Amino acid sequence: MNRLFHTMIGFFVLTTAARADEGMWLLNNLPKELLKKKYDFDLTDAWRDRAMKASIRFNNGGSGSFVSPNGLAITNHHIGSDLIQKLSTKEKDLHKHGFLARTIEDELKCPDLELNVLQEIIDVTKDVQDAVKPSMKPAEALAARKAIMAKIIKNSLAKTGLRSDIVTLYHGAQYHLYRYKKYTDVRLVMAPEYQIAFFGGDSDNFEYPRYNLDICFFRVYENGRPASTPNYFKVSPIGPKDGDLVFVSGHPGTTNRLETYAHLTHRRDATLPYMLQMLRYREALLSQYAEKGKEQRRWAQRDLFPVANARKALTGQYHGLLDPAIMAQKKQAEEMLKPKGAKLPDSIIFSDSWERISRAQTWFADHEADYFLIERGDAFDSRLFRIARTLVRLADEIAKDDAKRLPEYRSSALESLKLQLFSPAPISKEYEQMKLTGSLYFLAEYQGRGNASLLLPRILEGKSIPDLAGRVIQGTKLDDVAERKRLYDGGKNAIAISKDPMIALARMVDSDARSLRSDYDEQDETRTQAYAEIAKIRFKKFGTTIAPDATFTLRLAFGTVQGYEVDGVKLGHATTFDQMYARAKEQEHHHPFDLPKRWVDGKGKLDLTTPFNFVSTADTIGGNSGSPVLNRAGEFVGINFDRNRHGLVRNFVYTDHQARHVSVHSKAIIESLQKLYGADELVNELFAK
Amino acid sequence: MNRLFHTMIGFFVLTTAARADEGMWLLNNLPKELLKKKYDFDLTDAWRDRAMKASIRFNNGGSGSFVSPNGLAITNHHIGSDLIQKLSTKEKDLHKHGFLARTIEDELKCPDLELNVLQEIIDVTKDVQDAVKPSMKPAEALAARKAIMAKIIKNSLAKTGLRSDIVTLYHGAQYHLYRYKKYTDVRLVMAPEYQIAFFGGDSDNFEYPRYNLDICFFRVYENGRPASTPNYFKVSPIGPKDGDLVFVSGHPGTTNRLETYAHLTHRRDATLPYMLQMLRYREALLSQYAEKGKEQRRWAQRDLFPVANARKALTGQYHGLLDPAIMAQKKQAEEMLKPKGAKLPDSIIFSDSWERISRAQTWFADHEADYFLIERGDAFDSRLFRIARTLVRLADEIAKDDAKRLPEYRSSALESLKLQLFSPAPISKEYEQMKLTGSLYFLAEYQGRGNASLLLPRILEGKSIPDLAGRVIQGTKLDDVAERKRLYDGGKNAIAISKDPMIALARMVDSDARSLRSDYDEQDETRTQAYAEIAKIRFKKFGTTIAPDATFTLRLAFGTVQGYEVDGVKLGHATTFDQMYARAKEQEHHHPFDLPKRWVDGKGKLDLTTPFNFVSTADTIGGNSGSPVLNRAGEFVGINFDRNRHGLVRNFVYTDHQARHVSVHSKAIIESLQKLYGADELVNELFAK
Repeated sequence: MNRLFHTMIGFFVLTTAARADEGMWLLNNLPKELLKKKYDFDLTDAWRDRAMKASIRFNNGGSGSFVSPNGLAITNHHIGSDLIQKLSTKEKDLHKHGFLARTIEDELKCPDLELNVLQEIIDVTKDVQDAVKPSMKPAEALAARKAIMAKIIKNSLAKTGLRSDIVTLYHGAQYHLYRYKKYTDVRLVMAPEYQIAFFGGDSDNFEYPRYNLDICFFRVYENGRPASTPNYFKVSPIGPKDGDLVFVSGHPGTTNRLETYAHLTHRRDATLPYMLQMLRYREALLSQYAEKGKEQRRWAQRDLFPVANARKALTGQYHGLLDPAIMAQKKQAEEMLKPKGAKLPDSIIFSDSWERISRAQTWFADHEADYFLIERGDAFDSRLFRIARTLVRLADEIAKDDAKRLPEYRSSALESLKLQLFSPAPISKEYEQMKLTGSLYFLAEYQGRGNASLLLPRILEGKSIPDLAGRVIQGTKLDDVAERKRLYDGGKNAIAISKDPMIALARMVDSDARSLRSDYDEQDETRTQAYAEIAKIRFKKFGTTIAPDATFTLRLAFGTVQGYEVDGVKLGHATTFDQMYARAKEQEHHHPFDLPKRWVDGKGKLDLTTPFNFVSTADTIGGNSGSPVLNRAGEFVGINFDRNRHGLVRNFVYTDHQARHVSVHSKAIIESLQKLYGADELVNELFAK
Repeated sequence: MNRLFHTMIGFFVLTTAARADEGMWLLNNLPKELLKKKYDFDLTDAWRDRAMKASIRFNNGGSGSFVSPNGLAITNHHIGSDLIQKLSTKEKDLHKHGFLARTIEDELKCPDLELNVLQEIIDVTKDVQDAVKPSMKPAEALAARKAIMAKIIKNSLAKTGLRSDIVTLYHGAQYHLYRYKKYTDVRLVMAPEYQIAFFGGDSDNFEYPRYNLDICFFRVYENGRPASTPNYFKVSPIGPKDGDLVFVSGHPGTTNRLETYAHLTHRRDATLPYMLQMLRYREALLSQYAEKGKEQRRWAQRDLFPVANARKALTGQYHGLLDPAIMAQKKQAEEMLKPKGAKLPDSIIFSDSWERISRAQTWFADHEADYFLIERGDAFDSRLFRIARTLVRLADEIAKDDAKRLPEYRSSALESLKLQLFSPAPISKEYEQMKLTGSLYFLAEYQGRGNASLLLPRILEGKSIPDLAGRVIQGTKLDDVAERKRLYDGGKNAIAISKDPMIALARMVDSDARSLRSDYDEQDETRTQAYAEIAKIRFKKFGTTIAPDATFTLRLAFGTVQGYEVDGVKLGHATTFDQMYARAKEQEHHHPFDLPKRWVDGKGKLDLTTPFNFVSTADTIGGNSGSPVLNRAGEFVGINFDRNRHGLVRNFVYTDHQARHVSVHSKAIIESLQKLYGADELVNELFAK
């Protein structure tokens, strides 16, 4: 424990000056000079283009890459596991036992996975900003911005046929149009057993040394055949050595490094405590359900990992913000950035920007939990409710102009949305009822605090929570895809007259939810405008040599492979198979340190000195899971799957003092595929000339 | 899940009229007429006296009884487990492997267990009430009541040498003096393996059918030799049959059946949500620590069961109060009790009593969580902190008159207090540091809500939470009993000059904590006075035919052995060994359904038709764990260890619709002691003539 809660005071002050390997860089603004100067590395356009077009965004929350010209993609097991579980049945548990397709015919089609591959970035900042006039009130500005963005996206889609998104950078100072090639026919090729992918479980999660084969393979298809992917990474049979320069090309989700002190204070005092309570609640609910039996365990595991993983990551963030040294550093940096004069050339009172963000936070302090519960849906944690809400909203939104729709219902987003809505992934009503009941009880806990709306008594209508949950889950037909399609096709009228109790519930809460959403978006717009002003000040001082906060879009980070020291103990840059077996033995093979039978029986077949996992200083965050780790030659030398606990504060401050990301070594992948899984076809494909 | 959250609407309305077997009866006010009428049972004074003097209060939170004239006592394993774990070492884990002393010499002395056996009850209501004058303000009334109670207790102790407590009944309408024989030399005789005592774990906790050998044996000693206990229960070799009248003689901890609607609303909206968040937080902390390795698991298990058990019990209570039907029933009962006229003969405006309680609750709404965190110590969850606080307070309190001391520091309480304070039970600094760090982070989460005091920044002094926790835990010497004695002997001066960092921490928070305590007590006094008035109205209507709420003092409950039906499935009055083996098999022996080796290997030795656990309708609650179940002849036919989930609402309303308490059958105890544990000496002692 000593180690888990190790303090962070001291070294952050140092790292403020020396920025080390900080930066999740935009692909259209890479730090070429810095790389040349520090590492004597020439980052060519060809290198960059391949990195861009061979990197994949997994829309269920991770990253990946192509590793053959025939559409073969690799990601983390914990990114694929959502799909692996959906492809499992009571009789055939692929999550537990693993999977290998020996032929193309054996590959399993995923019910609802969308992959995006970035093709092009266009700066549309001027177009977006010109649409917003200084005289506009926040609600007007928001509407104007939404309208221009919808228009740009629609035109781009019409022109190129590519998925087009606008990415808001630097919290509103820049707007870039991203065009993606989209794959929706994705098939599972290979997955190892959950127990080796996540050896050490929650206990070793965000720790190092590690021993995880956190990989799985998919293949993208077009027109029913493996897609051609000429941009791919060659797998290095050697992998990285201690001290090597490496790159991580992936999709970091969210960082908060450019947030103001007031915003971070709110995060510390409201957002994170709420999130942690919600996650702990869910984790307990799921764990207790999983204990009831084998089949319950199989269902609960779908949600358990992401919940436990988020709980551990956010705990690290929360503890970071509670460290007075980190907050003092944030305060100091902010004071240094604030202009000292009252007015600046373009006559905007910049020093007011921080104050405006601070004022917006008071709205969030009072309403954010309600927003999370009612609009984000924390109070209705059931896939069947989410389907109902989507159908209810679609009926309303689809009748509107694109410019006036909620962004997720724009015509450009419909195909992706329908992939989810009509997914044939199996649904367990027993499981959904447990989750909905539990989340309604969680809503009750928050209502008791007197902050939330009086929504609960209204939806309960004098009945108990289990009554309501039982009635809507047992009564709904939304587990049937055909019924969803019927309601979708029937549009507004079909929804209005539907007697489906889940549709009725979604209808009943929708006006409260929409009202919270529009208030939230308006307050967020106030913040966005203020942040754009602050960004201008920052650009004036630093140019764009500070990367924007992460936005779940493609970024390139770099760093060196190197170990570190904790409490006087040196941890090497890589672990080995041998060390994994030692760890299992030391823990008496007690779960989560139990190895799959294949690994117990197959020990003798392996070269035990094979490097297994390794660490580097590159700047990663959640969303980077599955990112390829590349060497100077642009070869795949490993796959990122985690940070260590010292890296958990990287949401707020970059540090390379002990903080590392953790990757599976390419040698370990090849060794285990060949010796334990007999996946010769797969290995041959990786090394085909 | 369907089953777990089964609704409770409907049948409560019925049970309000027909009171069935409700009642945790005072030993000096037993429902003799009711028993005669309903069950044709004559409850004689001799039967009552033996029940009283053979029943034991385990001061660590449970009940038990003497089962031989030589001081042999039986209780639940989950009541003894605290001690079983303290008697374990890294090398010898009695909790995991069980324990049997074959001879008196082998019995293991517990470091800090106190048992109380009730000898006499004296009604002192008049003395206590006369000391409080109607003109007194709440603080004065509180002081006057504390003074008279301290005096009565002191005199009783001086006169009899017996531990003397005053019990506040009906929330302040009656005061009874309880005199106990006290045993502090208690030794462990026998404990089965944890895994059979708690087969099914948290998953089956508060469920039925059940299969738990939840027993262990201790022996009380006087002057270094087994005590003579002529009042004991003979163990029945037959046990109870379906339909039998049975009695439960034990120490129910707390019920809230007589609380007002406003008080219950506060419990639902504030107390229980806080408690559940705190317990879920601790459970997660402990579970995650336990996953780190074998030794960590051993330490964490000490606290895990009580925390998980409380979480499950309070969840049931919370869900009960969230059921609109239960609250409506409470409201209706209250309206019927309220006098309709404005004034009553003794010129007190009774109808104001409810209003006064409601006003007091507004104070609790604002300050209760602070009280729990700072004064109850939820924010400083470490045994080392509790030791420090006791030493710091002792130094102050011992200098005062008994009448002015906090009750737990009165001279009459000192012996019990010192048993805990100077306990040689082992302490793990690593474990304590994890718990203290975790609970300080929990304090931070509550402070963020803006309700709590600014205590945290003051004690942190600019450092981080892990820094503070590491410094005070690693720096303190309070893990050494000799150091505690030195500080105790040194009194006020030794505490004032102590440089021990844990003593310093306890000193630093003490004035905040004491201030919360005195405010809390004053508000509680306001409530107490109002409750006393309400009790008078209730007595006028019903006499004392309604038993007072539970107070962790001896009560007698009665009921019949009978099964029940859930969702059309009939559950019999008892389970068998055979059914236990079937349950383990069905769950593939997956933890917590794994059986100890002795039970796997020994299956063939057992009569598999032996009844294992059984249920009855008698009125029990937490604290009744370990209570003997008696037949008409006053023989021991089983030992209570749990309620089912339908019984969890019994805190607020009694029901026998599905609600049952669960006990180990006396036949199962004898069968397993003889056939599996080879505990012939023990069995012989139970059946000695």
